[in-house]
This record gives sequence, structure tokens and C-alpha cells, in this order.
Amino acid sequence: MPNGGQPTIVSIAARAGVSIASVSRVLNGQGARRDTTERVRRAAAELGYVPNAVARSLKGGRTRQLTFAMPDIGNPVYVAMVRAIQAVTKAAGYRLLLHSTDAVAEDELAVLRSLGDRTSDGLIICPIRITDEHIETLITAAGPVVVIGSLPPGVPVDSVRADSVAGAAIAVRHLHATGRRRIAFINGPSDTVPGHNRDEGYRTALAECGLTYDERLVVHTDFDIDSGAAAARRLLTEAPDAVFCANDQLALGAAHTLLARGLRIPEDVAVAGMDDSALAQAGWPPLTSVDLGSSERGRRAAELLLDRLENAAEPGSAPRTTTAPPRLVVRGSTAPATDPRSARSA
Amino acid sequence: MPNGGQPTIVSIAARAGVSIASVSRVLNGQGARRDTTERVRRAAAELGYVPNAVARSLKGGRTRQLTFAMPDIGNPVYVAMVRAIQAVTKAAGYRLLLHSTDAVAEDELAVLRSLGDRTSDGLIICPIRITDEHIETLITAAGPVVVIGSLPPGVPVDSVRADSVAGAAIAVRHLHATGRRRIAFINGPSDTVPGHNRDEGYRTALAECGLTYDERLVVHTDFDIDSGAAAARRLLTEAPDAVFCANDQLALGAAHTLLARGLRIPEDVAVAGMDDSALAQAGWPPLTSVDLGSSERGRRAAELLLDRLENAAEPGSAPRTTTAPPRLVVRGSTAPATDPRSARSA
Repeated sequence: MPNGGQPTIVSIAARAGVSIASVSRVLNGQGARRDTTERVRRAAAELGYVPNAVARSLKGGRTRQLTFAMPDIGNPVYVAMVRAIQAVTKAAGYRLLLHSTDAVAEDELAVLRSLGDRTSDGLIICPIRITDEHIETLITAAGPVVVIGSLPPGVPVDSVRADSVAGAAIAVRHLHATGRRRIAFINGPSDTVPGHNRDEGYRTALAECGLTYDERLVVHTDFDIDSGAAAARRLLTEAPDAVFCANDQLALGAAHTLLARGLRIPEDVAVAGMDDSALAQAGWPPLTSVDLGSSERGRRAAELLLDRLENAAEPGSAPRTTTAPPRLVVRGSTAPATDPRSARSA
Repeated sequence: MPNGGQPTIVSIAARAGVSIASVSRVLNGQGARRDTTERVRRAAAELGYVPNAVARSLKGGRTRQLTFAMPDIGNPVYVAMVRAIQAVTKAAGYRLLLHSTDAVAEDELAVLRSLGDRTSDGLIICPIRITDEHIETLITAAGPVVVIGSLPPGVPVDSVRADSVAGAAIAVRHLHATGRRRIAFINGPSDTVPGHNRDEGYRTALAECGLTYDERLVVHTDFDIDSGAAAARRLLTEAPDAVFCANDQLALGAAHTLLARGLRIPEDVAVAGMDDSALAQAGWPPLTSVDLGSSERGRRAAELLLDRLENAAEPGSAPRTTTAPPRLVVRGSTAPATDPRSARSA
């Protein structure tokens, strides 16, 4: 191979004895005279040309691929986002590549920087925290990016966010409306954004309902089933008549503890979760849960990204921020329905 | 292009006047006599063969990216595979790209062909069915591929498979060993490979246990929670003392029906699922389930792929097939444990 490097459209044109423009047309599949096509292909093969590396360096060489980077593929919230994003991008003729970053900032930054590789035309990313380096990398990204999450004010990047403060408040008001007065709360770590927001929603709704915040009814723990089960064991000494949980995993664990103690759900203790993930339906009884709009956020993010791509004439237009509203899905764990598998929205 | 279609290894072999096997070796970079290599490359170029394989055979820049293509990101089985694959590839310094193909054959083939784009150094793929076009595309892939699933004999591609026949039999023997004699079976569609294999395991184990196959105790349905709940309603008229289900979703649905009727699990009816997905732990009581080695299959596939990449000096070595053994995980739904969250392996 000449110069030991990758062949370029220049070297292919020289070998084929045609113009650079002709090589570009052939390699992009835009059509050319039969003998030109033949000469370009032969020269490309002889030079060991790797098709897309060159094709992409040509003007507007779109890959028709988009990327979604999420913290954890095992979390049903992100699975719901993937499904919604994929529905939109597929309909628009794009393939979706996925990255599971394990919430490692370094991986998130690497994915953002990889937009420069031109292996993907645009990126949707769900960073777990927004550092200064994230902001710098977002601003200098080599292609359009949409963030699912909350950006600091003034960062010129499109974003879609949830409203977990309002979501937590909806659940607490529902428990109050169904007659509960000792509403315990199993939350995630208080030093995370999700934990902080849910705490704010819980306190706000308690006040609205005329209930007093009682720290003995509140447990901060990790966001998983076993932590929910352990937290419920601690709370039982306080005799709550409802347990509101910061996600569905915590609610499943809490329900397991209650059932193992012979308590009835919802007759003795109501249980509500958040996220309305696939796990909510799997629970016994099926769990009332707050849908924080995972699908809706995915759909909106995909639409924002496509808009940037398809209307690239105005790349400098102002960044847009949109918030997906929360929605309560009532099931058997708070409402003694005749058919525990039936669900209704409220 | 002759005949208006993509050239195949058959048409390239005919034009080059060499055997199909020789074309395969050259296009896969596995080495051949110099004049054979030259004739194959020339024929491929003349036929307009997209020269990915040719390019790959020239030692080129690695992307340090690998791809995993799965049918459905919402299925916890594939999530377990992703986690296991990612652990291996990350440790080896590769980034993992994911594709969710929705089990659409066209998408699977597109991902296989995209190896030629050089956006990824290798591919692990879980095809839902293996068509002739899959085989053709697998053989001519522009980079190393490992299949998670069963390939027809003689296809020269590395693969990792599950043993769901043995897995179903383990579950039935466990139910028999714990005193059950009317073991109902909720299976998936009988015209699928998973459905067929589970049926074979169920029948084999019944015979080993001296039980008679009774078609009134068997329901074929779809692989989801609602189908499991409906199937259990039908089976209740037959008064089973155990319900074995072909996956965890079916088992959760069946458990919901039993609990809604006031039956105790496992005292009145034992329930067992398959896959040992995250849903098994979410169930009430937590579900006994057969781990078909999703993680193990992912881990082995990643190791096979890395071996091909790192030991490229022997690319022509024989394809390897490995089978992940099934493993029963006993939980509260079949064993009246004192702590229903405890699990033990048997």
C-alpha cells in the first residue's frame, strides 16, 4: 500500500486515472459511467481500500447511524427509553447503536468524543452526573447531542428531563386520598439528584395533605430489592399504613417483607413504587407506580436529535429543553381491585 | 453488476475458477496460494464485490470496538448476556457497541455486513432463526463472528449454545423430588426451537420419574406474563400440584393467578420458571428457576471472539462450539424455606 497508510480518494483517483469527483460519486453509490465505476472499484480493491473510512470523509457522508449511551442496560427505565428511541429512529431510516457506560464518566466522555470518528451521525446521552468536563465535551461535540437529564442553565445543548419532584408528590397525594395517614418513605441515597428530588416531592405533598414529616418513617438506602426488603423490616416497628418507595425495586423488596410477615397488601399496608418499569407488573400484588415518562423522554429526545439532523441548515438555533410530565398508574398494591391485574391511570 | 444482484462466494468461485472453500479462505483472510488469492481478489473486484473482506485481510487499524447484536433489549436474558460480555471486553480494552435487532432477519444481516465498515473489530450475534442467507453472510463476514445459538452442522463459525432440553428436565425432576405428581407445563409456541426443546425435556424427565404425559396438563401459549396468567386459569380445573413454566414471565403470570384464587405457593401448588432472570427474584414468592447460563454464554462468546482477535495468526483454525450447562436455582416458589428470599443452588 503506498506510504503504508490508508488509501485515500486521491490515491484511488490517481490509480484509476479518473477525477477525484468521480471516485467520490462511485464510492458514495451516486452513479457514474460503467467503465468509470469499474476502474474505481478495481483501483480501490487493489489499494486495499476500506470503503466507509473514505466515504465518510467526503462531504456529508452520513452513516445513518445514531447512538444512545445509557448508564445501565439492566435498569428497565433505560430499556423503555431504548425502545422509544428505536421506534423513532427506525421510522426515520436510522440504525441505533447502544452503549452501556456503567455510569463511568470516562466512558461517557469517550462516547461523546467518538462523535468525531463519524461512526454515528448524532448522540443521545443520559449522564448520571454533569461535571465541568461533561459540559466542555458537550459544547465541543463533533455532532448533534441531546441529553436526557438536567443540564445547568446556559449550556447550549438540547435536553429532556423528568419531573421526579412532581412524581413523588402525586404518589403521596394518592396514598393520602385512599385514606393512608402514616405514609413511610423508602428513598435512595440523599446525596443523589434522584434522592434529593423525591425527598422534596414527599415533603411537599405531606404538607399539602396536612401530614407532619416524621423522620422515623423515612429510610435512605440503595436503589435495589434487597435494600427495600431490609428498610421495610426497620419501618415495621413504626406501623405505617403505606410505604412509598423511590423506585420499583425498593417497592418489590418492601412488599416481600410485608407478605413474609403475613401482612396483606393493600388492606393492611399499601405499597407504591416509581418508574412504572416492567417490574411493577411482575410484583404481587401488581404495583402502583409513578411513570416518570421514560418512554416519553426517549421519544422526545429522538425527535429533537432528528430535528437537528434533518434541519441542519440552522445548527445554531437556540437549545431546547422539554420536561416529560409524571403519571400515576394505579394497580392492586394500593387499590383493592377485584381483578388485581387490571390497571388504570389517574 | 451481473444479474443485478450482490455477487456471492459461488459466483466469485465460478469466475475465478477456484473452489468455494478457496474463496471463503481468501475473503476471510485465512490464507491461500498466492495465485489463488490473486484470482479470487480479481474476480471479486470484477463482480463488484464489496471488498470488505479483502480490505480486512490487509492488516489494518483496529477500532478496539466490538459489537453485540441481540433480538430484544427488553428481555432480561439478553441483558445478562450484555453484562457478561461487557465485563470481558472491557477488561481486554475494548468498547462494546450494542444492537437490538427486534429479531428482524434483515437487521441481523445488516449488522453482519456492517463488519465491513470497520466500525467494529468483531461481532457476537444471537440470531433468532438461521436462514440460508444468514449462513452465507456469516461465512463471508468481514471480521470474526461468534454466534450465541445453534448453528447447523458444518458451518465454520464459532458458537455457544444453551441446553434447554436438559434445563427443562432438571426442573421437572426437582418438582418430582419434592413430592409433586401432577406437574403441569406452560410452554411457549411449539413451533419454535425453545418451545420444542423444553417440550422434549419435560417429556423425558416425566418418563424418568415414572409419570405419564397427560396433554390436559400442558398449555402452549406466548412467552409473556398475561399468557402465563391465562394458561394457569385453564390448568386449575386439572388440579395440578406443580406448574413448570418455560420462562420466568410465564411463571410470574401463573403465580398471580394462583395467589388471586387464594392458593398458597408452594404449599398448594409449586411454581418453577426458566432463565433465572431478574424477574425470578422479583416474584412472590421468589421463583425457583433454571439458569440456562445467559451470563455464562455471554462470557464464553466474548472469550471466543477475543481469542480470534488476539490470536489472528491462526485464523483458519477449526470453529469451536461450546455448550453452557443449565443450573437449577431453588427459591421459595417450590421450597417452603423459612426465609423466602434465600436461594440455594441444586
